[in-house]
Amino acid sequence: MVPFPADLTPPDCAFASDNAAGAHPKILEAVIAANSGHELAYGDDPHTRRCEALFAELFGAPVRTLLTFNGTGANVLALATALGPSQGVLCTGWSHIAVDETGAPERVLGVKLIDVPAADAKLTPGDVAAQAQHFGVMHHVQPGVVSVTQSTELGTVYTPEEIGEICEVAHGLGMLVHLDGARIANAVAAHGQGVESLRAMTIGAGVDVVSFGGTKNGFLGGEAVVICNPDLVRWAPYLRKQVTQLPSKMRFVAAQFNAALTDGLWLETADHANQMARYLYDSVRKLPGIGFDAPPAVNAVFPCLPDQIIDPLREWCFFWDWDRLRSQVRWMTAWDTTPVDVDRFVAGVRHFLA
Amino acid sequence: MVPFPADLTPPDCAFASDNAAGAHPKILEAVIAANSGHELAYGDDPHTRRCEALFAELFGAPVRTLLTFNGTGANVLALATALGPSQGVLCTGWSHIAVDETGAPERVLGVKLIDVPAADAKLTPGDVAAQAQHFGVMHHVQPGVVSVTQSTELGTVYTPEEIGEICEVAHGLGMLVHLDGARIANAVAAHGQGVESLRAMTIGAGVDVVSFGGTKNGFLGGEAVVICNPDLVRWAPYLRKQVTQLPSKMRFVAAQFNAALTDGLWLETADHANQMARYLYDSVRKLPGIGFDAPPAVNAVFPCLPDQIIDPLREWCFFWDWDRLRSQVRWMTAWDTTPVDVDRFVAGVRHFLA
Amino acid sequence: MVPFPADLTPPDCAFASDNAAGAHPKILEAVIAANSGHELAYGDDPHTRRCEALFAELFGAPVRTLLTFNGTGANVLALATALGPSQGVLCTGWSHIAVDETGAPERVLGVKLIDVPAADAKLTPGDVAAQAQHFGVMHHVQPGVVSVTQSTELGTVYTPEEIGEICEVAHGLGMLVHLDGARIANAVAAHGQGVESLRAMTIGAGVDVVSFGGTKNGFLGGEAVVICNPDLVRWAPYLRKQVTQLPSKMRFVAAQFNAALTDGLWLETADHANQMARYLYDSVRKLPGIGFDAPPAVNAVFPCLPDQIIDPLREWCFFWDWDRLRSQVRWMTAWDTTPVDVDRFVAGVRHFLA
Amino acid sequence: MVPFPADLTPPDCAFASDNAAGAHPKILEAVIAANSGHELAYGDDPHTRRCEALFAELFGAPVRTLLTFNGTGANVLALATALGPSQGVLCTGWSHIAVDETGAPERVLGVKLIDVPAADAKLTPGDVAAQAQHFGVMHHVQPGVVSVTQSTELGTVYTPEEIGEICEVAHGLGMLVHLDGARIANAVAAHGQGVESLRAMTIGAGVDVVSFGGTKNGFLGGEAVVICNPDLVRWAPYLRKQVTQLPSKMRFVAAQFNAALTDGLWLETADHANQMARYLYDSVRKLPGIGFDAPPAVNAVFPCLPDQIIDPLREWCFFWDWDRLRSQVRWMTAWDTTPVDVDRFVAGVRHFLA
Repeated sequence: MVPFPADLTPPDCAFASDNAAGAHPKILEAVIAANSGHELAYGDDPHTRRCEALFAELFGAPVRTLLTFNGTGANVLALATALGPSQGVLCTGWSHIAVDETGAPERVLGVKLIDVPAADAKLTPGDVAAQAQHFGVMHHVQPGVVSVTQSTELGTVYTPEEIGEICEVAHGLGMLVHLDGARIANAVAAHGQGVESLRAMTIGAGVDVVSFGGTKNGFLGGEAVVICNPDLVRWAPYLRKQVTQLPSKMRFVAAQFNAALTDGLWLETADHANQMARYLYDSVRKLPGIGFDAPPAVNAVFPCLPDQIIDPLREWCFFWDWDRLRSQVRWMTAWDTTPVDVDRFVAGVRHFLA
Repeated sequence: MVPFPADLTPPDCAFASDNAAGAHPKILEAVIAANSGHELAYGDDPHTRRCEALFAELFGAPVRTLLTFNGTGANVLALATALGPSQGVLCTGWSHIAVDETGAPERVLGVKLIDVPAADAKLTPGDVAAQAQHFGVMHHVQPGVVSVTQSTELGTVYTPEEIGEICEVAHGLGMLVHLDGARIANAVAAHGQGVESLRAMTIGAGVDVVSFGGTKNGFLGGEAVVICNPDLVRWAPYLRKQVTQLPSKMRFVAAQFNAALTDGLWLETADHANQMARYLYDSVRKLPGIGFDAPPAVNAVFPCLPDQIIDPLREWCFFWDWDRLRSQVRWMTAWDTTPVDVDRFVAGVRHFLA
Repeated sequence: MVPFPADLTPPDCAFASDNAAGAHPKILEAVIAANSGHELAYGDDPHTRRCEALFAELFGAPVRTLLTFNGTGANVLALATALGPSQGVLCTGWSHIAVDETGAPERVLGVKLIDVPAADAKLTPGDVAAQAQHFGVMHHVQPGVVSVTQSTELGTVYTPEEIGEICEVAHGLGMLVHLDGARIANAVAAHGQGVESLRAMTIGAGVDVVSFGGTKNGFLGGEAVVICNPDLVRWAPYLRKQVTQLPSKMRFVAAQFNAALTDGLWLETADHANQMARYLYDSVRKLPGIGFDAPPAVNAVFPCLPDQIIDPLREWCFFWDWDRLRSQVRWMTAWDTTPVDVDRFVAGVRHFLA
Repeated sequence: MVPFPADLTPPDCAFASDNAAGAHPKILEAVIAANSGHELAYGDDPHTRRCEALFAELFGAPVRTLLTFNGTGANVLALATALGPSQGVLCTGWSHIAVDETGAPERVLGVKLIDVPAADAKLTPGDVAAQAQHFGVMHHVQPGVVSVTQSTELGTVYTPEEIGEICEVAHGLGMLVHLDGARIANAVAAHGQGVESLRAMTIGAGVDVVSFGGTKNGFLGGEAVVICNPDLVRWAPYLRKQVTQLPSKMRFVAAQFNAALTDGLWLETADHANQMARYLYDSVRKLPGIGFDAPPAVNAVFPCLPDQIIDPLREWCFFWDWDRLRSQVRWMTAWDTTPVDVDRFVAGVRHFLA
């Protein structure tokens, strides 16, 4: 192994994933502040009640919010609230629920996922409309829920109009729409109109239930299932416990969201991560030997690199492969990535490319 | 409503539940300390590795530990590692898995629970032996796992010998044993021999897999599935994700356990809670109109009260009913209950009894 | 082993079970007659259409009938049509779904059964009313369906009024009612008013969905799920396939029901079986050493015998134990049991008792 | 609607599906013959014991056979015997388990199907080998079972060597192999070496468990799960009941197989169906306006027709669409299709093509 040049300092924050980052100081402070005295468990506490109020305010609608532990759990719970008997879930072949959750939806819900190909990880209204062919065929699961991811697993973003069209087609067919928003903050930040963007791509578009991510956006850990369609509320509390996602000391999940939803912190952190990805992209896009399919819409860039530099570069500063066949990797920024981190990393990339 | 006397100050910490308490300062500090820079997600971090080592050291055996979010999740995962095809779980009719988890084992695992009556919430070797009648009967689930709770849902405690006998009978029949230790620390503290007690009632007794509780013992939240039987290790990591219990930023769960397992904090907090329950019991047991079935073995007392004082007393300082038909309630202590809390509460009890 | 006396001829039909009997000649003839040329599969055939019409006529109501293969399958499908998310099923601890189906409801439906003790295997309105305590408690499955068995696993029978009261309480609480009628024909025959009894104990009583048995009543094999509550119809065809109960060549199941439902054959066969049980009971009840809790209501008698004669008698003519601790066995009659079978069997009983 | 020419007599047996055909006379006779007196239920009868012996003889190996009701049930049971915890099933996107069973595997088994594209509905050893990438990744179900269909849903056939290579790769990776043989008789007939072909493509190739079809091959109804790998036997009887596939009066399923497996009837009927498909293909392949991708390997032909004749032709003699976008339909022959049926049908095709 060739030693790394002494003057090549790796960044403090690597580019492995946004869930490699820790918690934002304000979020940690909120947890500390919530750790005072006794509060009833399972959500019967003022922090959780405040959290529910903040989500209703954020969405500008009487949504019902259920806090959960992690993204897989939030997705499983959200789908559980929306699925009817013998119904399946339409999603893309890239979707996290289909490929990165170890079959949790199948196991916990007994549900079939109908995954369709999508080069950019985005469903189209046509994909939804095409499901109508299965209605009434007793040998097929009945398409019941459309699940879109925003931002997607490929770092692409739906416009609110695109989501609205999917919802319109879905609702016209009697289907409901779930939005997996593990990185919804990054998508909202990318759209640029702040809370209005959030409302436009959820309530405004007609989404029925949202998995609203916190963990990847500077939390210790915590996600929210935001139910926009009041028909889905009734059984949700029981389902949450049944799918093992009821936090006992819920105040500590609530406190994190309460901090994030105060003064727009949730958007600020996501926007920062997005900007760092753009800065990273701009810093390397013209380097010889590096290629991109597209500029980053959110907080990940997907460069193709000369194959022989991937492992040495990773050895120096860790990141994950994306598509090794194309020598494509993923560099992901987080709420705490700094321009200095980017500069140092770019220096390393230049070094190994040279 | 009669106003409460001005000199009757309710305790700072009520007696609702140990999960109404917050996090112990040392545990919170450990979380704060772990919040430094980037660490890979899903357990590939030094905190989690240390946690695994600490558990192996604690159990004095090469156990494999998987961190999870909550007790229901830990139980579901533990059972998932131990159950074979078409097998069921023997437990008491009081068991948390049978009555307080909204059917999570049935839903997530598709498993049948075989719940048998037990006045003291403890299974006997005879209960296990009696399951042999179902072996080979194709119309019955095949008894595969015995689940005991330590300390039990009624606040009783198994001796290590009792657990050992259950394991012996179970293993002799080809069954495995799960120990739901949501309050195992309280049971160990009650037994009085520290780590030796823990080892005796788990590894020594022959338990195959343990749900080791943290949440109720001064954590923000976090439980561990400790696999003692190496045959159960192989699929456990996949099962954890599949049942939605894989923490993303696992270091923050690990850090809590690392603090708890350092210098015996986990036992100290549990022992304190137990002592406070005993102090409360001793302070009220001779009061006229109050009755007990037994002194507390761990951190809950179950008094029978004059029915008409229950609601006023609760109005003043909250606690839960236990068996309203007997006018029996539950008062539970926690790691942070103080003698002053007990004294104030006892003053209230005396006031309402008068 | 003492040889059996040469003049002690065992009966042609033993008393093991009604599912040890074959098919009634008229039912077999119907299958033979249906085996003519091609008919579309999965129920799109005239036999199945006729079957659906015959059931609507029988129930005197626009019921929707789905044919299935076996009793476990019919029960699982019936429950699937009636259960909402996070709901459980109230039943007795004797119920077939709870103790004789290898956990099929739990595995296939992920549902929790709430089984309550019942000395006579009959639920009471009070049992149903008591479930209200669980409503709204998020740690409990929500009681959603009441399942009664008619006639019960102990050979007892509900009156239509008793079922009506259960339905009234259940519906008042927002619950639905399933009737496991694997032996409903025997119960109707016992009640004595023919089709009116059937209607009274199902449609009239308010039952939502019925498992209507054929197999034990002279079929090759086949059961029907009769949906009385139109709200349960919509997803039933998809659920039937999903739970593996969609017969491909459905005409052959339909033909059996069509024969059974013609000229009251289904009642005639069941009534005959009931009468043979009564005749057997009357023939042995006064023999010394034999005891009964009650006369048979349907087609099974449950004698307690001198323990030492059970095995020799069984060796001579097979039957099953019921409660060996009480030296209680079960003798069951079928559509084809003859008085001569009974007389021969009684001769054997007398011989071994002597 | 133009009236059909008076001299155009439609065939007695249409070409909709092999499951539109009834039962072969010998199979029906066997059922009739089995309907004599009482036999214990659930397989403890001489017909079932004989059936198990006949399968062992047929496979030339000590296989364990479990009779079931239908194809979906057989597949679900077969997969249940082979799957380990957190494992998934590799299959093609055409596979019956993935697209024609209303998500039964997902619902009943909680399993994820990993379906890969295959133009000819056949998996390759490379498809299996590629699954190795998922081993050890805790976010993915662990590929545990490979399911191949023989003959496939597209009417193609694996050679024994092809299946053997798949088994070799699968076993080398620790995976097991399931063969969905709903139409295995047609595949064996196509291969041409009789029982030797069957053994070569199952036991010889290394298949672990087979769904052995009867229904489509001249039965009233009935399938068999043939377990070749003795490790899969232990829990199979309990799993059969649990997935609702335990026939009560099993003798009537067994009797059908016993007739089919006597004097090679099962192969004779399948071979006849195959030949009729070939005769149909040969009779129409050169007609102007009709096109084929390939000659039939088994008992289905998939012609592309002038779009405007499809509906009139179907109106005259029913068949199903296959790929309406290509104006492709499916004509399927059965054990009872006669040359006269084919000739009449071809006359109709000629008429409508003219």
